Amino acid sequence: MMDYDSSEFGRHAGQALERIRQAHPLVHHITNFVVMNDTANATLHVGALPVMAHAIEEVAEMVDLAGALVLNPGTLTPEWVRSMLAAGQRANERGVPVVLDPVGAGATRLRTNSNLQLLSELHIAVLRGNAGEVGALAGVRTEVRGVESVRGPDDVVGVARAMARRHRAVIAITGQRDIISDGDRVLGVDNGHAWLTTITGTGCMSTTMVAAFCAVEQDYLFAAAYGLACFGLAGELAAREARGPASFKVALLDQLYNLTPQELAAGARIMAIGPAAESDHA
Amino acid sequence: MMDYDSSEFGRHAGQALERIRQAHPLVHHITNFVVMNDTANATLHVGALPVMAHAIEEVAEMVDLAGALVLNPGTLTPEWVRSMLAAGQRANERGVPVVLDPVGAGATRLRTNSNLQLLSELHIAVLRGNAGEVGALAGVRTEVRGVESVRGPDDVVGVARAMARRHRAVIAITGQRDIISDGDRVLGVDNGHAWLTTITGTGCMSTTMVAAFCAVEQDYLFAAAYGLACFGLAGELAAREARGPASFKVALLDQLYNLTPQELAAGARIMAIGPAAESDHA
Amino acid sequence: MMDYDSSEFGRHAGQALERIRQAHPLVHHITNFVVMNDTANATLHVGALPVMAHAIEEVAEMVDLAGALVLNPGTLTPEWVRSMLAAGQRANERGVPVVLDPVGAGATRLRTNSNLQLLSELHIAVLRGNAGEVGALAGVRTEVRGVESVRGPDDVVGVARAMARRHRAVIAITGQRDIISDGDRVLGVDNGHAWLTTITGTGCMSTTMVAAFCAVEQDYLFAAAYGLACFGLAGELAAREARGPASFKVALLDQLYNLTPQELAAGARIMAIGPAAESDHA
Repeated sequence: MMDYDSSEFGRHAGQALERIRQAHPLVHHITNFVVMNDTANATLHVGALPVMAHAIEEVAEMVDLAGALVLNPGTLTPEWVRSMLAAGQRANERGVPVVLDPVGAGATRLRTNSNLQLLSELHIAVLRGNAGEVGALAGVRTEVRGVESVRGPDDVVGVARAMARRHRAVIAITGQRDIISDGDRVLGVDNGHAWLTTITGTGCMSTTMVAAFCAVEQDYLFAAAYGLACFGLAGELAAREARGPASFKVALLDQLYNLTPQELAAGARIMAIGPAAESDHA
Repeated sequence: MMDYDSSEFGRHAGQALERIRQAHPLVHHITNFVVMNDTANATLHVGALPVMAHAIEEVAEMVDLAGALVLNPGTLTPEWVRSMLAAGQRANERGVPVVLDPVGAGATRLRTNSNLQLLSELHIAVLRGNAGEVGALAGVRTEVRGVESVRGPDDVVGVARAMARRHRAVIAITGQRDIISDGDRVLGVDNGHAWLTTITGTGCMSTTMVAAFCAVEQDYLFAAAYGLACFGLAGELAAREARGPASFKVALLDQLYNLTPQELAAGARIMAIGPAAESDHA
Repeated sequence: MMDYDSSEFGRHAGQALERIRQAHPLVHHITNFVVMNDTANATLHVGALPVMAHAIEEVAEMVDLAGALVLNPGTLTPEWVRSMLAAGQRANERGVPVVLDPVGAGATRLRTNSNLQLLSELHIAVLRGNAGEVGALAGVRTEVRGVESVRGPDDVVGVARAMARRHRAVIAITGQRDIISDGDRVLGVDNGHAWLTTITGTGCMSTTMVAAFCAVEQDYLFAAAYGLACFGLAGELAAREARGPASFKVALLDQLYNLTPQELAAGARIMAIGPAAESDHA
């Protein structure tokens, strides 16, 4: 079922990072106020170009220049959701991959419903959220306190696969082990570090990384895995320099910039999750 | 008049910090664009959970999950003030403490009037501002240039007590010595460092700290003092590592995370300000 | 044609920095969400006071307190542009210099047209942009991808001079060598470092620096040169400490604060660009 042998993932991730750094794809963000600066910098450091633009008068035109579109309704209003829909529709027409980060889905009806609307009216390439958020969108009992997953579903792989089939999207549920599925195939990514949970916006930054890789890798299952491995590996390298969360954040952004394709190839910990895949086809 | 002997303040502040780190209360912010990232991180580092949500369609629902609500109209529009009123009304109904930061009150009529409206239509647990801002709301002649207190009232203690009585709120006026009053009792907090004046958003971050402590300490006079002592002490520890304001800010956020309840107990410099309290009852 | 001998530029830049640090002028920003925190801090560090205020109900009143006004439509909507026009009109009436940063002009019609409207309806003291953005506003063929200048005009000096005459404004086009013209005189500034291109918001921060200097130097051609030299020199000093873009950014803000008027006097690399000036009067 997998296109690549498991040992090949790292090498392909490195090659994709190389392509980002050669092509400098534009990643158009309609995102939340809290993380705009961090995600813009993370985009630049990985080798892509960021632009933040949310006016309904310009989003379609901006999408035309973009290699990927990030929709992150973390500080949403209905007006911003309308801009996201307009941008997403243009992206779908143009074949620009749309990556959705359902920040705080499950915490309020506005958040849950707006994300479900985006999932149903648009073709989403990758949905990247934590277990609580994705579980809430799947209709599973979870607990989301603000934007934090307090309790996720028991069967993360099952939720990822079911959601992927329902919405014909790649679903990436991040946690200690990231789970990524397109409904058939399932990948796991074990890169990352506990420091990533001590600062705000690391989920949003990982979504941005997924988008940057989607701009250069058309199999979005792999793009999501490469992006999460790349970001998690930068976090591992940064952890050595952390004296607290803010110095960790400085090191994280530094490492994202300094990370070479060779280091990503050697350090990515991506695996095919066989059993779950098998059982589904039994 | 004081519930605690002065020497006990530190110990109780440390216990309150411990409670934040066990309960992880959600601190719902409707705040300004400039500081959203910093206040979200400061909230996380002290041990609470941040959420930024301003849509009038969701604020009441988000308040229901929260342990405290921060209203910070630093980049206000009338629309945002309406959301603040809606969130504040729900918080009042539910007994969720509301902490108000009147950024730039006195600089324009919109700022002065909006903050007065919030103070009169809501029950504010704690108002935390600089001397110029609080003086302007008290109707005292002050000078606020943008968001900076250029000239405050002569009698800071008197203004704090009068405002506390008028609005039935705890008033915290921060400066070299922070003054906190509920109209009867008056506390002073001497923690802090000059580096805190060299970066933007330290007032807003201190308000966030007050809110986090209000979520675990029902006597808001003490909650305000603990929050300001905690933030000021982190600033003192960070000053040792500063090579300039930005490296100070990194160290400040690191220290807020690393600060233990024991260190807060030992380092908090909170005192009852007796004479002022007496004279009022003479 | 030059008011100062070339060797005098540094000395005068240092004196202007000294005036900022004595007068603490308020720099009122109506700017984009991505850079608000960074530009507020940069304003403070150079010695001025920042305020971010965009509500149409208060911008005129805030302008009355300001020494300079920054208009930066980087995450624009038509509503924000209306506030910019209102603030700019008041600034023009009061003689407060208006500095415009046309972020992303050329990328979408909304951006190009909004900036042209600001240029035509307001008297702009200084327009500070990259070559692609200014070229787009000049009607020259350029390529702007998001907010990045991918291809600028061949004759940067010519575009700067023509635009300066057309709009009766100082035009500052930043790049490896910054070019500044008021239509007659042309200056070049060679301060800066490649690290400045690795983080978001350095263009916006340089615009803020220009505004701070405009508050204390009425010849805006010189103010722009001093601001760009000051910011570029801080970047040069910071480069020594960079381990990546985020640690560079921390060092950049630290250096901006630590930079003395004497160091600016010694390190500014500002020159009169003679030939271009001559040829125009031939």
